[in-house]
Amino acid sequence: MPKRSAEHLQARRDQILAGARRAFSRHGYEGATVARLEEEIGLSRGAIFNYYPNKLELFVALSTEDEARILRAALEHGFEAAFRYIAEENPDWLGVYLENARLLRTDAAFRERWKSRNPELEQLAEEYLTRQQADGEIRDDLPAETIGRFLGLVADGIAVQTSSGFAVDIEPVLGLVRDAITPRQ
Amino acid sequence: MPKRSAEHLQARRDQILAGARRAFSRHGYEGATVARLEEEIGLSRGAIFNYYPNKLELFVALSTEDEARILRAALEHGFEAAFRYIAEENPDWLGVYLENARLLRTDAAFRERWKSRNPELEQLAEEYLTRQQADGEIRDDLPAETIGRFLGLVADGIAVQTSSGFAVDIEPVLGLVRDAITPRQ
Repeated sequence: MPKRSAEHLQARRDQILAGARRAFSRHGYEGATVARLEEEIGLSRGAIFNYYPNKLELFVALSTEDEARILRAALEHGFEAAFRYIAEENPDWLGVYLENARLLRTDAAFRERWKSRNPELEQLAEEYLTRQQADGEIRDDLPAETIGRFLGLVADGIAVQTSSGFAVDIEPVLGLVRDAITPRQ
Repeated sequence: MPKRSAEHLQARRDQILAGARRAFSRHGYEGATVARLEEEIGLSRGAIFNYYPNKLELFVALSTEDEARILRAALEHGFEAAFRYIAEENPDWLGVYLENARLLRTDAAFRERWKSRNPELEQLAEEYLTRQQADGEIRDDLPAETIGRFLGLVADGIAVQTSSGFAVDIEPVLGLVRDAITPRQ
């Protein structure tokens, strides 16, 4: 491979990820064949797999990117912002995202790969919850991990309902989520 | 079709639903071809489609049965019992169940069909929440519908996590859900 500038490499990666996301959204994970990936991305398989070794890594790159965006939204603007972000996500893509539960269930290597998507951000999110507890912003009568898991469940629930294509007005529900985690009088 | 006893008809239906559930769990909704349905059920397509007009109706029958069981558990033993039921469900089947979000998103006829699965039970569930509000068991500063939607989100989140095959200990989280919906001091 000839030497390329960092900008060129990044632009190619962006092009590949954007096309792969369209291919997955339109055809599902299984249905996104190499031919369809080539078509949506506009590059040959040789070029694509120069950047990402296989379809699974392409998918992991997209889901890692999404998880990072959601965690960053939560860290910077609170969990409501993160939940709104999910509710506004493309339902087709969310469908693919949820599809991968099957891979998690059946593929041990994928499960390992999945766990280590955003270790630094996940660490930051846990520290954030612990800090919020210390500041009296969220209840401290439960481990931060339990509160994190509750918020994760709600996030997955929003993803399911959004992926069904029913218009989801999550605002009335966010107040209940907030009440669940604020300190009890 | 010769006249059959009600027991015989019910036994056949049970056999068909049990086999269809296995076929969907093993192969997914799309992958459960008519040949695979025949194999798992142990009846010819003619016999199967005598009871259910097509694959979609077989799937709707299964999901209707599941929803009814979960709603009944909630009505009789509270929402925690219903959530535990989901967490103990077969992850493979839950995966198929979640797959159908795609059908909901893309198939208008299926969306209509889906809405009217268990109208009586859904009505009972709504009345139950309203009664719990009147009795001071759950908060009444929000519409019963909002509380129902919150519980539905949590249920879907539990379904996603269980379908991923990660062991889900929902007990620590159930307390948070309970706190969210109990009357505020």
